[in-house]
Amino acid sequence: MNWLDELKWDSQGLMPAIAQEQGSNDVLMLAWMNREALQKTAELGRAVYFSRSRNKLWFKGEESGHVQIVHEIRIDCDQDVILLKVTQTGHTPGIACHTGRHSCFYRVYENGEWKVTDPVLKDPQTIYK
Amino acid sequence: MNWLDELKWDSQGLMPAIAQEQGSNDVLMLAWMNREALQKTAELGRAVYFSRSRNKLWFKGEESGHVQIVHEIRIDCDQDVILLKVTQTGHTPGIACHTGRHSCFYRVYENGEWKVTDPVLKDPQTIYK
Repeated sequence: MNWLDELKWDSQGLMPAIAQEQGSNDVLMLAWMNREALQKTAELGRAVYFSRSRNKLWFKGEESGHVQIVHEIRIDCDQDVILLKVTQTGHTPGIACHTGRHSCFYRVYENGEWKVTDPVLKDPQTIYK
Repeated sequence: MNWLDELKWDSQGLMPAIAQEQGSNDVLMLAWMNREALQKTAELGRAVYFSRSRNKLWFKGEESGHVQIVHEIRIDCDQDVILLKVTQTGHTPGIACHTGRHSCFYRVYENGEWKVTDPVLKDPQTIYK
C-alpha cells in the first residue's frame, strides 16, 4: 500500500502538521496538509502545507523566503497527525510566524488572560514585500 | 472578554492541542479540546482533552494513571491551536501513547515507508487494566 494511503485524512482530506525546530525542539507552528502537500514535502525536503484560507498548496517561505528545511517526517499512532523536524531558514533565530516571531505560540495563559511573551524579531512589513 | 471566548473554535467547537514535554521538549501527542476541556485543564493543572471517538471529556490518565501535569498553556497567532507544556507522570521515561511508547510519533517516513523507530516501554495490557 502506498505510504500516503495508510494515513487517515479527515473529511476534507486534511490533517494537522506540527513543525518542530531541529536542535531546540521548539514547536514553531501547526498548519494543515493534504495528500499532495505531504507528497511534495517528502519530495522536496521542504515544508509544503495546504492553506485552508487560500484553498491551495502553500510552499512555506514562498513570499517571505523563510523556507523550512525538513529533516524528518513522523506520523502518530492514529495516523492522523504529522510531525516535521525542520530548520527554519531566512533569519537567525528562525522566524516561523507571520507576525515576525520565532514561533506562532507566543501567547501564554496567565490568570484568566493571554499574555504576549515572545518578541517580534523582524517587522513583518519588511518580511512580506 | 473571557479568555475562552477569544479563541477560534472550529465548527464542532474543537481545536487541536499539542502536548510537549517540559525539559526534553519532545512532542508527546496531539489531541483535541473543547471549551470545557481547556477550562478544566487550566483549573486543574492537568491535561483534559475531548475524546472525539467517545464524544466526552477525557481526563488524560483516568485509566492508565499516566496523568499529564500542565506547566504552561499557550495559544498560537491564529488562536486556533493550543500548546501545553507538560510532565508526563506514571512512568520514567513518561509514556504518553496508548501503545506504551513515550510519544505517539513513533513512526518515521523513510523511502516511501513508515518505519517504527521508538520502543514500547511498557506492555499496554499492564497499563490499562
